[in-house]
Amino acid sequence: MGKQTLIFKNDIFINSTATIVGPKEGAGPLKETFDKAYDELYCGEATWELAERKLMSEAIDLCLQKANKKNEEIDFFLGGDLLNQNITASYVAREKEIPFFGLFNACSTSMEAVTLAAVLLDGGFGEDVITAVSSHFSTAERQFRFPTEFGGQKPKTAMYTVTGSGAAYISKKKSKIRIEAATVGKVVDLGITSPFNMGAAMAPAAADTIKIHLQDLKRTPNDYDAIVTGDLSRVGSPILRSLLSEEDLDISKVHQDCGVLIFSGDQEVFSGGSGCACSAVVTFGQLFSEMKRGTLRRILVVATGALLNPLMVQQKESIPCIAHGVSFEYVE
Amino acid sequence: MGKQTLIFKNDIFINSTATIVGPKEGAGPLKETFDKAYDELYCGEATWELAERKLMSEAIDLCLQKANKKNEEIDFFLGGDLLNQNITASYVAREKEIPFFGLFNACSTSMEAVTLAAVLLDGGFGEDVITAVSSHFSTAERQFRFPTEFGGQKPKTAMYTVTGSGAAYISKKKSKIRIEAATVGKVVDLGITSPFNMGAAMAPAAADTIKIHLQDLKRTPNDYDAIVTGDLSRVGSPILRSLLSEEDLDISKVHQDCGVLIFSGDQEVFSGGSGCACSAVVTFGQLFSEMKRGTLRRILVVATGALLNPLMVQQKESIPCIAHGVSFEYVE
Repeated sequence: MGKQTLIFKNDIFINSTATIVGPKEGAGPLKETFDKAYDELYCGEATWELAERKLMSEAIDLCLQKANKKNEEIDFFLGGDLLNQNITASYVAREKEIPFFGLFNACSTSMEAVTLAAVLLDGGFGEDVITAVSSHFSTAERQFRFPTEFGGQKPKTAMYTVTGSGAAYISKKKSKIRIEAATVGKVVDLGITSPFNMGAAMAPAAADTIKIHLQDLKRTPNDYDAIVTGDLSRVGSPILRSLLSEEDLDISKVHQDCGVLIFSGDQEVFSGGSGCACSAVVTFGQLFSEMKRGTLRRILVVATGALLNPLMVQQKESIPCIAHGVSFEYVE
Repeated sequence: MGKQTLIFKNDIFINSTATIVGPKEGAGPLKETFDKAYDELYCGEATWELAERKLMSEAIDLCLQKANKKNEEIDFFLGGDLLNQNITASYVAREKEIPFFGLFNACSTSMEAVTLAAVLLDGGFGEDVITAVSSHFSTAERQFRFPTEFGGQKPKTAMYTVTGSGAAYISKKKSKIRIEAATVGKVVDLGITSPFNMGAAMAPAAADTIKIHLQDLKRTPNDYDAIVTGDLSRVGSPILRSLLSEEDLDISKVHQDCGVLIFSGDQEVFSGGSGCACSAVVTFGQLFSEMKRGTLRRILVVATGALLNPLMVQQKESIPCIAHGVSFEYVE
């Protein structure tokens, strides 16, 4: 059908972004590409949840400040996070007083938000839209796995939730980064039940979205300077490449993964980074700065989400996954 | 600015709906308006979570069956529920294999989904969209308050979460119910901290959305046959009317509340019904059947959501709330 991929009739642009991260991200290989890094996980707040909220709030403030825009000039805020009831985004929306669409597709929310922002703008609904997502290592650990104080051992397939928030201000005003097309993911589940192996769980969803994206647009992997997954990390990435090679799609030359890029091999992060913030801060930081320089001219960002719920895993359900892909193009 | 209210350029219609509910709803005053009612809360499943999933899955099936549509003909599914990580909608999306936008704005998700469905269709993104939301008394109680087995006493201001799911199939094909406009809510919080008094918590958000909707469209309450809130119930409803009368808006002649309509006074439901399903099953059942007969010709449905998170309440935060309003018009 081809309807799974949205092609925007108007030119929709990323006008500014901001990325704020935690200590481990700020000590990693992409440290120069982030706007700000806190040196401890509380970020000066009393609880980790408040720290995460501060990250998102400051990311939005900084993003709008770069664009010389005020909260009250923004028509819609689309956002989400990993915490139950999207509490980071909900409380930030309360503070910013911007009409709010709360979204949840786990770590793929970053590109779900960009997609729906472009849909709203393309349809002429508003002129100025902000998206933001966040995640935090400590809030995610205690909600999804074990309290960190418990000191549970983890297998090598585990991932390390990125602490941070990425915000993007999107409008029809010209910039060097255009949102060209978006492929909305289906929920795919190949039966992984371990919350310590989400890279493997998410790989089939990423493969499905990439395959459909290329089919719908009649393109090959070589039409992209980079196809960047969100957080498949070192375990899920080879599975993705292998799944796609079974479909005669070789992405090995252009594939990168935000969860691999954000940490170096000697940082103790198991198989790599994950979380809503992972794809957001790498895309809005490193990747977009390369696009602004023109060294990347078209990239497909495939944010991957494991719709993990501890109660469902306890009820012996496997983890459904989803991936949303957005194609960004460099404009002279 | 007026941008908070979206006016659709194309005619977007509700083509079919389905409502499936639990035992208490099926014994209430609206019982004839639901498509199906289960006589026990497990709905024949092993867990309450699986019961809730069955409700949503069956609501979608029935909704599409009424429209003579198959899953694979549907372009997008927009949905959500009250459970952490939207697990009802996520697992249903896995089963239906329809490209999925997961949404979360608590009980206002019903109208958030209808709004974004109309935005997608208006922009020419796809032709056939389904929305669905659900809630379940027992899954909500154990997640948000106490396990029901605990037998905790509740104050009269508490609400009773509606067990059920409502689905709507939306397209540009003409029907008698047109989606005319939608007002996207802001997060409003006047400081209520009790999860047993959500009607009062949500009233200011509903008031804000109704006021802005009327301002943006230069209308008065009398331009509507009914202004129907989602789940303010017996405690929040008079607060809403009082807040609006301070703004010189008298909605008393046209105001109804789904949480009040769905149960009778002698059913033990404290101040009334709540939950994502509350606004959905009352709107898609009773209200739309009145619209099809032409006895209601224009209604504003204001779905109210309390973005309640138990951890935040434990951290002494108040409950942020939001309300999304959608105006439906009878078409000859």
